[in-house]
Amino acid sequence: MTRTNGERTPAYPSSPKQRQRYARMLRAAAHLGAVHGLEGMQMHDVARRSGVAIATLYRYFPSKPHLFAAVLHDQVRRLDAGSPLPPQGAGPVEAVSELLTGASRQLFEQPLLALAMLQSNNVSHVGDGDPARRTDEIVADLILRMAGVSDPCDQDRRVVRILEQAWYGLLTTVLYERSTAEAAQEGIRLACRLLLGPVLCERRS
Amino acid sequence: MTRTNGERTPAYPSSPKQRQRYARMLRAAAHLGAVHGLEGMQMHDVARRSGVAIATLYRYFPSKPHLFAAVLHDQVRRLDAGSPLPPQGAGPVEAVSELLTGASRQLFEQPLLALAMLQSNNVSHVGDGDPARRTDEIVADLILRMAGVSDPCDQDRRVVRILEQAWYGLLTTVLYERSTAEAAQEGIRLACRLLLGPVLCERRS
Repeated sequence: MTRTNGERTPAYPSSPKQRQRYARMLRAAAHLGAVHGLEGMQMHDVARRSGVAIATLYRYFPSKPHLFAAVLHDQVRRLDAGSPLPPQGAGPVEAVSELLTGASRQLFEQPLLALAMLQSNNVSHVGDGDPARRTDEIVADLILRMAGVSDPCDQDRRVVRILEQAWYGLLTTVLYERSTAEAAQEGIRLACRLLLGPVLCERRS
Repeated sequence: MTRTNGERTPAYPSSPKQRQRYARMLRAAAHLGAVHGLEGMQMHDVARRSGVAIATLYRYFPSKPHLFAAVLHDQVRRLDAGSPLPPQGAGPVEAVSELLTGASRQLFEQPLLALAMLQSNNVSHVGDGDPARRTDEIVADLILRMAGVSDPCDQDRRVVRILEQAWYGLLTTVLYERSTAEAAQEGIRLACRLLLGPVLCERRS
């Protein structure tokens, strides 16, 4: 069954009951997405597993990409809310490296879900709040916080955006089996060093 | 009509007649992809426009992503074969910046085709030669050539891979209308400077 109602504005959960139901749908999608991936997962199975009507599921998530974008958004929000602290004694570049390689390791544990989320990440609207803070903005702010940059200038934000895009790209090469996880993790550390190093130097001088 | 024969190994064009037909299919896909994008373009229309049977089209390109990956591969191969020279007086970082921002400008002129190609770029097998040089390898070699690096070490290749991934990512943000072309082009130039600068410095010292 193909639904092409991607143009309709997705619903927001507002009451506590709606939020619970919304969380159940995200959990079901994360579980089934890890088993079946974007193509293989069926919206009907998500509705069944989360105990909602199929129409309800589509009201919140007009398509599978909307659903997986919301799962990613939820995972990133949790990571952010956990307010991870830089490892003791780590410099700012190392702190960001640890953040990104740690998150990568978790993503690699469920490669089908990770790929489904990254393939869906460009769906712009994630309906968990209005205005929703975009996934890439949450990640950017988290990177800046880990790097100890509390007053980012435009240039800092541009650099972090490049790092974020490089990170997604390196993750994708692993998930499509075009690169090993080890090579990608090494690439992520190198990207942190080359991109963030100058930003942080300028700041100290 | 849904075809799910993505597992079958695509055919290669070998005779001159096959190569002509292959080129016709790529041209038709580039034209129709620019108008309709990945989702909207129909394989039947590509077959009709290039004057081949639908079965022939599917023998070379088992799916639309295979077809658009081949269109991208073809465009990159042409760019490479044109052996662009660094602009006169340009340093190596500037030469690579010009290469990537120039290619970006061309891609932005046909945004639906560009998006279709980037969405398809992870299909691993592009059947225009055996062994086929992968699209990302051609781009990486071209970047190194433009930077004047004739004897790249492993670290150089890692850095270029990061730059390439960041470039694809920044392009994608524009094609999904999450960033302006100007901001992305500025990001590309900054990425070239930050990533390639140290490589080239080490080389000179």
